[in-house]
Amino acid sequence: MSLSTRLTERFGIKHPVISAPMAFAAGGALAGAVGAAGGLGLIGGGYGDAAWLDEQFAAAGNQPVGCGFITWSLRKSPEILDAVLARNPKAVFLSFDDPEPFASLIRARSIPVICQVQTVRDAARAIDIGADVVVAQGSEAGGHGERRATMTLVPEIADLIASRSPATLLCAAGGIADGRGLAACLMLGADGAVIGSRFWASREALVHPNMHRAALAACGDDTTRSSVMDIARRIDWPPRFTARVLRNSFTDRWHGREEDLRANADEEAARWRKAWAEGDVDVANTFVGEAAGLIHAIEPAGEILDRIVREAEAAIQGRSRI
Amino acid sequence: MSLSTRLTERFGIKHPVISAPMAFAAGGALAGAVGAAGGLGLIGGGYGDAAWLDEQFAAAGNQPVGCGFITWSLRKSPEILDAVLARNPKAVFLSFDDPEPFASLIRARSIPVICQVQTVRDAARAIDIGADVVVAQGSEAGGHGERRATMTLVPEIADLIASRSPATLLCAAGGIADGRGLAACLMLGADGAVIGSRFWASREALVHPNMHRAALAACGDDTTRSSVMDIARRIDWPPRFTARVLRNSFTDRWHGREEDLRANADEEAARWRKAWAEGDVDVANTFVGEAAGLIHAIEPAGEILDRIVREAEAAIQGRSRI
Repeated sequence: MSLSTRLTERFGIKHPVISAPMAFAAGGALAGAVGAAGGLGLIGGGYGDAAWLDEQFAAAGNQPVGCGFITWSLRKSPEILDAVLARNPKAVFLSFDDPEPFASLIRARSIPVICQVQTVRDAARAIDIGADVVVAQGSEAGGHGERRATMTLVPEIADLIASRSPATLLCAAGGIADGRGLAACLMLGADGAVIGSRFWASREALVHPNMHRAALAACGDDTTRSSVMDIARRIDWPPRFTARVLRNSFTDRWHGREEDLRANADEEAARWRKAWAEGDVDVANTFVGEAAGLIHAIEPAGEILDRIVREAEAAIQGRSRI
Repeated sequence: MSLSTRLTERFGIKHPVISAPMAFAAGGALAGAVGAAGGLGLIGGGYGDAAWLDEQFAAAGNQPVGCGFITWSLRKSPEILDAVLARNPKAVFLSFDDPEPFASLIRARSIPVICQVQTVRDAARAIDIGADVVVAQGSEAGGHGERRATMTLVPEIADLIASRSPATLLCAAGGIADGRGLAACLMLGADGAVIGSRFWASREALVHPNMHRAALAACGDDTTRSSVMDIARRIDWPPRFTARVLRNSFTDRWHGREEDLRANADEEAARWRKAWAEGDVDVANTFVGEAAGLIHAIEPAGEILDRIVREAEAAIQGRSRI
């Protein structure tokens, strides 16, 4: 058997795995390593730093990679998309706001559009505007997201796709960090998985070593969803999106006291940003999902991907032989 | 192939499926129907109404069934456990508080103890006190629960069991409503699934027809987790546990305004309870999980179970042949 799916066929990749375009952490080295190992690697376009993106595309070398954007942020600096499209990326991934008009611009260049959604209602919109791939992201994911869980969101969107647009592909995101998770999301009806936290915990990811250590020491119970780190960073995320991070003294102090935090924003913003730069994980938050409890080593991304695929094949084959 | 697992072997059942002991909804007719169809059926002991439990065990007829309890509530009327143990139930299921001293009392009668947990920390405790089965319940479940998602909680607890007590069985709960979900949780390392919402949406469940209709009309985006219905019902749930229900005008009005609700408790309690009795789903809440979006008909429980098993087998076999 193999794990070939419609995703591997459509993108000409070996394994049905996409690395999530995590802001700051997913640079060209990570995207390139995932691509070299047979997945689809994505650079995290984040909040739109053109010089950083240039560096990261360079770091991916000759390996074809794609790029992801935070859609509401891209609306503030749409010229970043033009610069990325000029590089003929393998795909462009949009999440966190209506995908238009960007999706149309991307498709006009014959570049595949991947739309990540957090609700069934947004999935319907992504299908209607012609997304090539819909990614159903569950709340267990690290970083920004919403409230639905991967376990129910994936099959519900699979049914929607089957009835409305059977050629649209579907990937699962949120909580998938090993072969068990990859096998599970294929059973749920996905054509592949978008994996974030597990690749965040790779040697190629651009992550402070203290944050890696904090994630390795954590179990999955130790994360929370909150907006306080966005308030502290003065990033205007739409309120429906919160970020999953490791709980620390900062979230313990401010979560549920968002108005007080806004009143102290100047002081707290400076403190949080200094702590982020220094890797002070008790003040700045470590952006990782519930899958932290499934991650026990920082390893090369290619080895991680190889193992996930082997484990998934073994899980499916083991079960089918009983 | 078959879906035989350690769970089917240990309990002498045909399918690796347990029906959740949902308070009020899971009576003897449902538990008996699930048992007759080859699963393990559980009566919902709920908040400890001895006369109701007598009726429900009678309604199960000759079919062996088990019984579940809300552990913190059982602590207030522990004599209910004695009455249930005297019936030699197939298993006793404990959730929502430390399982002792009840687990020891149950095991002393050689009756299997099933401990449902919502965190890795509680799973460690359940393993340590000798639970026969640990149920990892994700937040997508209907009714009471916590914040972890099924997709990560199951494999993390599977690893804990493997390292600490390999003979302990593991089931997944939360978001499993069809064969895709059952196949997925087997891939995640579970020996079986505890299914709630899908059996709640059966002909045998004790549910007001208006609530069934509301769930059929809902998609998975339409649920929320809150404590407001417990405040309105004057049931003293520990604050860590919230209940997933369909959003309605009651939750829209009071969620986030819990202190105001307490100040209006007399009036709101009477209103909510009247609405519950009358099936007014805009005031009383419909207790169903995110899986509402996967449920499209109210059917006999036995047919539901048969289809789930056939779908799961097909999902695994289809994938293994590629």
